[in-house]
Amino acid sequence: MVFQQELNFTTSGRSTTNITHQVQDLVVQSGISTGICHVFVQHTSASVMLCENADPDVRIDMETYMQHIVPDGDPMFLHQDEGPDDMSAHIRTVLTNPDLTMPVTRGQCALGIWQGLYLWEHRTHRHQRRVIVTVQGE
Amino acid sequence: MVFQQELNFTTSGRSTTNITHQVQDLVVQSGISTGICHVFVQHTSASVMLCENADPDVRIDMETYMQHIVPDGDPMFLHQDEGPDDMSAHIRTVLTNPDLTMPVTRGQCALGIWQGLYLWEHRTHRHQRRVIVTVQGE
Amino acid sequence: MVFQQELNFTTSGRSTTNITHQVQDLVVQSGISTGICHVFVQHTSASVMLCENADPDVRIDMETYMQHIVPDGDPMFLHQDEGPDDMSAHIRTVLTNPDLTMPVTRGQCALGIWQGLYLWEHRTHRHQRRVIVTVQGE
Repeated sequence: MVFQQELNFTTSGRSTTNITHQVQDLVVQSGISTGICHVFVQHTSASVMLCENADPDVRIDMETYMQHIVPDGDPMFLHQDEGPDDMSAHIRTVLTNPDLTMPVTRGQCALGIWQGLYLWEHRTHRHQRRVIVTVQGE
Repeated sequence: MVFQQELNFTTSGRSTTNITHQVQDLVVQSGISTGICHVFVQHTSASVMLCENADPDVRIDMETYMQHIVPDGDPMFLHQDEGPDDMSAHIRTVLTNPDLTMPVTRGQCALGIWQGLYLWEHRTHRHQRRVIVTVQGE
Repeated sequence: MVFQQELNFTTSGRSTTNITHQVQDLVVQSGISTGICHVFVQHTSASVMLCENADPDVRIDMETYMQHIVPDGDPMFLHQDEGPDDMSAHIRTVLTNPDLTMPVTRGQCALGIWQGLYLWEHRTHRHQRRVIVTVQGE
């Protein structure tokens, strides 16, 4: 059995958005009990991440770390067409991935108790982001 | 066809554990000949990695590199609740991923000759880790 | 329904190769309309990446960034058996992943308009690379 649906989000610029509930709702809607749930961002400057969901400082630190390891506007980059956050956003996306797959067990994504699913916007300005969710199984 | 089973590991603190055989055994048990095998760590401070399996120095170097690029107890981190290896473990997990999918061919994960599947513990102390393996195909 | 096929590439040493068309062709050949497409590199020193496909400078910058963050021949590495690009290639592969899954919609990988699929060779010399493509769905 296959179920597929698109989700649309407007991000508020560089930030993480908890999308766990929206994706879990689609898994319930799919009627699939056992299998996998694939989440895919159709962009090259936003990613999906499983992250600790209890202390918001963890996501602040993730952001601090990324700004440290992939500095915006680094002069080593040739591609700066859309500003200093352009190439850094592409690199952050490759390091943290636009695709993610989770197991489905008893009709839900089988996440650990501290795992939250986040859409991670890497551009500094707001963007419309399309996420495709595919659930497969029985 | 879908097959799903949980594996449990007690890690000895920061280290890699070869789990190739346990996962291959489940694929055989599934009876699935062609498809995919999805491996998922239900935690935010441990990941799964495909890594060179011949020279143990490669995994020592992976560890050295991670300690270099994500220093424990870095003062830039706010989240230090469980010690200096807390936030660094979350970042290592996001960089190296808690999910991994391999093809299944002729009833086995179709790994390259040098590819080994490792559970990577990022906390310095021993932990119980749950890994969910889902095999789908025909 | 499951479809699986091997693709073979000879890379020209450290570089990215656009393999979007070859993989899309296999999805068409599979006859699968809705589902997922899994792409897997059977090696520990090459990866697959979704990257901006319009400006070639983006991939030049990716390479520059990787050389900056994972220097070849870094004296901290023990494993140098096959030269200065040996251990760095393993690390690049773990950071950028040998596996990738895309949704299949209306008989094609549902990529965003700027997403191209690239095989990323991390060794400096030419290599033969095996990529296994598995399409699942209905």
